[in-house]
Amino acid sequence: MRLRHKPWASEFIAQQSNYAIANPEQHKGKWHEVFGNNNPIHIEVGTGKGQFIVGMAQKNPHINYIGIELFDSVIVAALQKVVDLQLPNLKLLNVNAKNLTEYFADNEIERVYLNFSDPWPKSKHSKRRLTYKTFLALYEKILVKGGEIHFKTDNQGLFEFSLISFSEYGLQLKFLSLDLHNSDYEGNIMTEYEEKFSSKGQRIYRVEAKYMNE
Amino acid sequence: MRLRHKPWASEFIAQQSNYAIANPEQHKGKWHEVFGNNNPIHIEVGTGKGQFIVGMAQKNPHINYIGIELFDSVIVAALQKVVDLQLPNLKLLNVNAKNLTEYFADNEIERVYLNFSDPWPKSKHSKRRLTYKTFLALYEKILVKGGEIHFKTDNQGLFEFSLISFSEYGLQLKFLSLDLHNSDYEGNIMTEYEEKFSSKGQRIYRVEAKYMNE
Repeated sequence: MRLRHKPWASEFIAQQSNYAIANPEQHKGKWHEVFGNNNPIHIEVGTGKGQFIVGMAQKNPHINYIGIELFDSVIVAALQKVVDLQLPNLKLLNVNAKNLTEYFADNEIERVYLNFSDPWPKSKHSKRRLTYKTFLALYEKILVKGGEIHFKTDNQGLFEFSLISFSEYGLQLKFLSLDLHNSDYEGNIMTEYEEKFSSKGQRIYRVEAKYMNE
Repeated sequence: MRLRHKPWASEFIAQQSNYAIANPEQHKGKWHEVFGNNNPIHIEVGTGKGQFIVGMAQKNPHINYIGIELFDSVIVAALQKVVDLQLPNLKLLNVNAKNLTEYFADNEIERVYLNFSDPWPKSKHSKRRLTYKTFLALYEKILVKGGEIHFKTDNQGLFEFSLISFSEYGLQLKFLSLDLHNSDYEGNIMTEYEEKFSSKGQRIYRVEAKYMNE
C-alpha cells in the first residue's frame, strides 16, 4: 500500500480514544472490561482501512473485535468508519504486531484474522511475514487453547509459504480454498484489497488453521 | 481417462512377467530380491500410461520404482515403454491400490508418488480418493518412518481436499507449489495428463508431505 503522510492522523486518533485505544498495555488481561461484556474477542492483525473488521463487527454483534494497524495514516480510515457507525464491539490499536503479548494476556483472544498481509517477497525478509513462526508463537500465546488463525490473501507466494509455516509449526489446516470467490464458502466479508484484486479476476486464497494445544 | 477395452492386454502383461510382476504378494518383504540390489524403493499409485515413472527410472538409476495401476488397458502402455527401454529398476503391478499391504511389508517403501489421481468430485465418493485417510493409513504402513508422499494434480478440489486430509492425518507439508510450471522447482518429470493440461494453461499443484512418525 502506498502511504500518504497525514499530519492530522495522530490528532484524530487521540481525539477518538473511545474507539482507538491509547496505552493498550494497560488493558492487558482486562479487555472484557473495555467492552463491558464477556463476549469472545477476535483480533485482526494488519487492519488497514478497516472494511473487513467493520463488516465483521456489524455482522456479529456478540463478538468483540480489535483491529491492529501499525500505520496511523491507514488506521484513520478504519477509525472514521467506526466513529460514523458508533460500533460498540470494535476497538482499534495503532501499534506494532510484534508487541502483541504486551497488550494481551495468555488465552485472552479467541481468533486471529490475517488479511492480505504484506507478502515481503524477498526471502531475506521472510521473518517479517505475519505467518512466520515467531508470529505464530505470539498468536499461540495470546490465543485460547485450540484457537484459530483465519488467513486470506491474493499473494500466491505468501500463501504457499504460510501453509508450510502453519504445518511446520504444528497447526492443523481445517478449511482451505484456492479460489475463494468461486467456492461455496458463504458469508465472506471482503477487504478493500480483496474487492480490488478479485474484480481484476485475481484468485483469493483462504485457509483456517487451528492450534493443536488443547 | 476414457478406457478402451484391449482384449490382448492381459496376454501381453502375462508375457512380460520380468517387468509386469504377477502374484506380487509372493514378493512381500522381499522386493530387494526382485531388483537384485538394496536401493530404495519408490512406488507410484495410479501409474497410468507410465510416462512419469519411466522418466523417473531413467533419471534415477539408483532408485527402484514400482508402478501400480488397476486398469490393464492402461498399464500396457507403460509396460511397452519399459520393455522397449529394458529398464532394470522399474517394475509394474496390475493390481488394486486398496490391497497395497498385501504386496508390501512394513517399512519396505521409501516414497509414494500420486500423480493426477482420479478426483472423485462427488463428496459421496470421497473415500475413493487416493488421499483419503484410509489410503494415508495404507501408505503409512508400508512406508519407512518419516516416509513421504509426493502428490501433484491439476484438480483444484482434489488438491484442497488432500491438503486438509494430509494435515488432519498429521502429515507435515514440506514443499508446496500452487503453480508448478511457473515456479522455480527443477527437475519436474511430466505425466501424460500434465503435458496435456499445462499446455492448455491449466495450473499444476504439487505438494510433498511427510509422516511424522520417526
